[in-house]
Amino acid sequence: MLSIGAGILALLIAAMLSSSIMKAEAGNELMQEISGHIHEGAMAFLYREYKALAVFILVVAIIIGIFLAPMTAVCFIAGAVFSILAGYCGMNVATKANVRTTAAAEHGMPQALQIAFSGGSVMGLGVVGLGITGVALAFALFGENGANMDIVTGFGLGASSIALFARVGGGIYTKAADVGADLVGKVEAGIPEDDPRNPATIADNVGDNVGDVAGMGADLFESYVGAIISALTLGAVAFKGGEGVAYPFLLALSGIVSSIIGILYVRHSKSTNPQGALNTGTYIAGILTIGAAAYLSNSLFGNMNAFWAIAAGQVVGLLIGKITEVYTSADYSSVKRIADQAETGHATVIIAGLAVGMYSTFLPIVFICIAVFIAFFVMGGMANPALGIYGIALSAVGMLATTGITVAVDAYGPISDNAGGIAEMAELPASVREITDTLDSVGNTTAAIGKGFAIGSAALTALALFSAYSQVVKLKAIDLLDPVVLIGVFIGATLPFVFGAMTMESVGEAANEMVVEVRRQFHEIPGLLEGKARGDYRRCVDISTAAALNKMIAPGVIAIAFPLLVGMLLGPAALGGMIGGALAAGVLLAIMMANAGGAWDNAKKYIESGVHGGKGSDPHKAAVTGDTVGDPFKDTSGPAMNILLKLMTIVSLVFAPVLAAHGGILLGMFK
Amino acid sequence: MLSIGAGILALLIAAMLSSSIMKAEAGNELMQEISGHIHEGAMAFLYREYKALAVFILVVAIIIGIFLAPMTAVCFIAGAVFSILAGYCGMNVATKANVRTTAAAEHGMPQALQIAFSGGSVMGLGVVGLGITGVALAFALFGENGANMDIVTGFGLGASSIALFARVGGGIYTKAADVGADLVGKVEAGIPEDDPRNPATIADNVGDNVGDVAGMGADLFESYVGAIISALTLGAVAFKGGEGVAYPFLLALSGIVSSIIGILYVRHSKSTNPQGALNTGTYIAGILTIGAAAYLSNSLFGNMNAFWAIAAGQVVGLLIGKITEVYTSADYSSVKRIADQAETGHATVIIAGLAVGMYSTFLPIVFICIAVFIAFFVMGGMANPALGIYGIALSAVGMLATTGITVAVDAYGPISDNAGGIAEMAELPASVREITDTLDSVGNTTAAIGKGFAIGSAALTALALFSAYSQVVKLKAIDLLDPVVLIGVFIGATLPFVFGAMTMESVGEAANEMVVEVRRQFHEIPGLLEGKARGDYRRCVDISTAAALNKMIAPGVIAIAFPLLVGMLLGPAALGGMIGGALAAGVLLAIMMANAGGAWDNAKKYIESGVHGGKGSDPHKAAVTGDTVGDPFKDTSGPAMNILLKLMTIVSLVFAPVLAAHGGILLGMFK
Repeated sequence: MLSIGAGILALLIAAMLSSSIMKAEAGNELMQEISGHIHEGAMAFLYREYKALAVFILVVAIIIGIFLAPMTAVCFIAGAVFSILAGYCGMNVATKANVRTTAAAEHGMPQALQIAFSGGSVMGLGVVGLGITGVALAFALFGENGANMDIVTGFGLGASSIALFARVGGGIYTKAADVGADLVGKVEAGIPEDDPRNPATIADNVGDNVGDVAGMGADLFESYVGAIISALTLGAVAFKGGEGVAYPFLLALSGIVSSIIGILYVRHSKSTNPQGALNTGTYIAGILTIGAAAYLSNSLFGNMNAFWAIAAGQVVGLLIGKITEVYTSADYSSVKRIADQAETGHATVIIAGLAVGMYSTFLPIVFICIAVFIAFFVMGGMANPALGIYGIALSAVGMLATTGITVAVDAYGPISDNAGGIAEMAELPASVREITDTLDSVGNTTAAIGKGFAIGSAALTALALFSAYSQVVKLKAIDLLDPVVLIGVFIGATLPFVFGAMTMESVGEAANEMVVEVRRQFHEIPGLLEGKARGDYRRCVDISTAAALNKMIAPGVIAIAFPLLVGMLLGPAALGGMIGGALAAGVLLAIMMANAGGAWDNAKKYIESGVHGGKGSDPHKAAVTGDTVGDPFKDTSGPAMNILLKLMTIVSLVFAPVLAAHGGILLGMFK
Repeated sequence: MLSIGAGILALLIAAMLSSSIMKAEAGNELMQEISGHIHEGAMAFLYREYKALAVFILVVAIIIGIFLAPMTAVCFIAGAVFSILAGYCGMNVATKANVRTTAAAEHGMPQALQIAFSGGSVMGLGVVGLGITGVALAFALFGENGANMDIVTGFGLGASSIALFARVGGGIYTKAADVGADLVGKVEAGIPEDDPRNPATIADNVGDNVGDVAGMGADLFESYVGAIISALTLGAVAFKGGEGVAYPFLLALSGIVSSIIGILYVRHSKSTNPQGALNTGTYIAGILTIGAAAYLSNSLFGNMNAFWAIAAGQVVGLLIGKITEVYTSADYSSVKRIADQAETGHATVIIAGLAVGMYSTFLPIVFICIAVFIAFFVMGGMANPALGIYGIALSAVGMLATTGITVAVDAYGPISDNAGGIAEMAELPASVREITDTLDSVGNTTAAIGKGFAIGSAALTALALFSAYSQVVKLKAIDLLDPVVLIGVFIGATLPFVFGAMTMESVGEAANEMVVEVRRQFHEIPGLLEGKARGDYRRCVDISTAAALNKMIAPGVIAIAFPLLVGMLLGPAALGGMIGGALAAGVLLAIMMANAGGAWDNAKKYIESGVHGGKGSDPHKAAVTGDTVGDPFKDTSGPAMNILLKLMTIVSLVFAPVLAAHGGILLGMFK
């Protein structure tokens, strides 16, 4: 009940922020027209995406209703709808906050920061508000104080499914538009980013919203919900309900309140240093949550074990963020090494970037392992494994408790980016663009921290869900010495590779279509390049939309079909192996792709800052190649990988009863 | 005893072939001078490499002698020395066969094929002859009919250690020289491949020998030895000695005899179609081996179960070869798609190639899983797991039984390549170069088949060794639900990524040094580019040699130190998890890197054949970028990955008694 209260509080504050944004001045007519196109394009995409997903949701709900339980189907639909709601509201506000940020930037930095951050906060508070409310409602109605978590897990499955499609679709949309706009506009025609003459510019700006706002929001909605559900499931087992399920709820509640305090701090700080304000706000929320974890640990369990598990998660999350920064920021040697390699051409940039990405997997994994180790043993996992695994889940919930402010900071990036695009297209004075550019770059440190928490929590949540799965299918062990488990491990490990290949290739193909279309418009529309005519931006928006919708299906099918296929043919143990293999390979690929992409991006920016010949030099061209390869790495395939893993695990968990009863057909033939 | 006889027979035939090569005509003075430089450079590298390895072997032998048993140390040294012997002899002959192939090519195709293939056969027969003799001797002296396999495994550890260093060192050498020679020679100075004006040409040709002959030979020596040892270990457990250990020996023996028959067929076929002759020879050897497997299965075990396990391995090996061809040959759509993407630039070529590599992992893994499944269940693994796992090991031995002819075909490639280089440098008529080029390209199909067997057998051998490990440390299960095992899996999965990054980066750095040196020579040596002066090729050879030796150490240390570190800190179960994780991630990365590299290479060649603007066009430049990225993928990091996996497994196996007794220090602290 308290949790639902906190959720509603978050939603109320989101509504207030939203209405304060609406009241802000929206700029001149041209600005409003441009922002209208972006808003319209984004909403049109969402509408078509949700229409396609409605069919999917209905079909899966029916399957769940028949093979599992009707109430699980209801929870599944609720999870999907809540996720869609969060995405829709966040996106609606973001596409209105962008032009208002531009308008505010005409008055100065603090005003612009306030609008952009408020826009991000609506998304952030929407995610946590709807997340906690949904889980708490499902738990109160069907959970029977933890005795009946199967049904509640349906909510998580709904959220995960939407997250996968939103991330993949959004990722393909945004990168097809971005790569397409850059290749013809910047490289071939030599016009700057966001130039109104480029007909793909609107699509590019729409992409920032559908990828980085709606996609990211759905992603964190599912992480948040998934972590809480896994903690509830495992807590119910470890403690037979009671404090085991109360703790995650209360921790999440504290996190929401802490996030609200952090957000209000940022909003009301009149600091001239936006970076400082964001960092302070994030730290405030983190410290308050840690404090609450300590208090709750002592008062609910009578000891500090849970606190240590959560503290380990927090510290590891921060460390992963720091490592991410070391590998991807131009202040450190990795990015500089990539830039050096640009001297000898395109190929050496690629080799160096891939090597950086591959190296960068090691430390985050070691730190995640340390968090797992501490969380497990400090909770007493040696004597009682169920308690130890509950500790791992708590560690994930602790990492995600401050999702509210993390998403706010993350989502404020694309709003500022859009604001800059509108300034450029509306031909506003350079000073406006400078402010929006500063805002855009400011969130980088906090964004790196956020990424650390996202990766760490995804791994921990997946591990916790994996344990929950094994309990539901009543496996005593998933033994690597059993060849069937090993087969599962191998097949599982290939899936992230195939998934990554699919999503990368989709971006490549869609970008190609975009290139052809933009080239055509430059050729066929007289006066376009001279700025005398306007491009047909709708066609570009349509290309991205169609590509995203068509190409999100196959990866989605993989995520849902493979667990069922392997479970039915080879049985629950092989499926356990499959999840293990997918986790190991997938987390690594996700880290590698994200960091290689980030490092290439910053190596390019570093060269643009004037070293190695600066903009337009041969090394710069080589660095642009790296950045273009990195685009689908860091914004499509990499981020979608985390969801793939969790979705496969949660599909296994939801269908576990069926698989336990009927799985392993192929093995049965040898019995 | 019979096996030792077969081994000696193979060595005798190798000696005969070798002396017949030496008698062949060695061309004019210039050709002999050039070939002398190559021979000298290759031998100098081997000498320095072996000197460095001698220290390593001594240190490890002392450690083994102290912590395990002195006799294990003796076997370890023997394995290392036999591997070195095989590499040394093969390389010695290969660097003499190259110029004789060139000389023979002046008379015609069949003559040139005969010399080149004989050169390859010496390597092939040397590998299997020394391999079987070494294992059989170790087994006869220390194995006590299978009751005491720990000591014999030392032989495998020696072979694996040398293989890793030879593969990594050779791979770095050859690609540093190749990439360096190409970037300055072909791209900057616009002179053709193997042009005598390019001072890195000799290093490039030396590299073909140290990488593709000595490196590859050591690699297959260890696969061969490793597979037999794992089958002996598991056979001894499943059958308490007797037919369980007799079968692998007899199977290997049949494979050697079959290979000799196949080799003699190719050598004496006067066919004008060398491709046909090689294929027929390979198939003859394969079919004879399968026939022998059937006969042995029936007479030793009284049923055909072992035959089916081996047949499954053979079929899967062929299928993987075919899949490799589909993903990497220009006759199929993947390579054409990469070539299409060259139209839009460097970045899209890279994205497309990576996607092809990632996709290409799926089917080989599924087929390996099918082989595992069949081998396990057909042997009755459901009732008696030990028997089933023995079946997996047999499947690997079956795949590797024809290593003699596989290596012959593989090693004949670089000999022909070298022969072409000598023809170019000695400015022989174009007709000679045409013949050597045809020879070089002819082995492609058989090489793809060989690659399929190498990947498949490596995975199966590693799985079998892994099972052997678990038996020695007396683990009932390696349970993925145990967080310590999961930690092992995650850490294990990072190792191939780190290893790949290290080896790729080493190639990049060494190539850079080479680029700088070649540029310097073009600048500072007057008349070099006009062909009036000779470059200082020794400096280039030295750069490659030094880079290879320095940079092979760190990856080697990882492979040996990590299993010991994880085993000591987290115990044998975590180490089991680590091996599982490394296997899953490593086999996938190996396949991905090999196939992406092959596909890029052929996409470039496809464009050079005249499509998309042909040589010198912008798409061609983009394709060259792909090929250059692919070079370390397919010739350094990818092939070394397989050895990494087996070496880590065999290190664990050899040190298992120590780890079982003293491992898990960190866990002990929580007890």
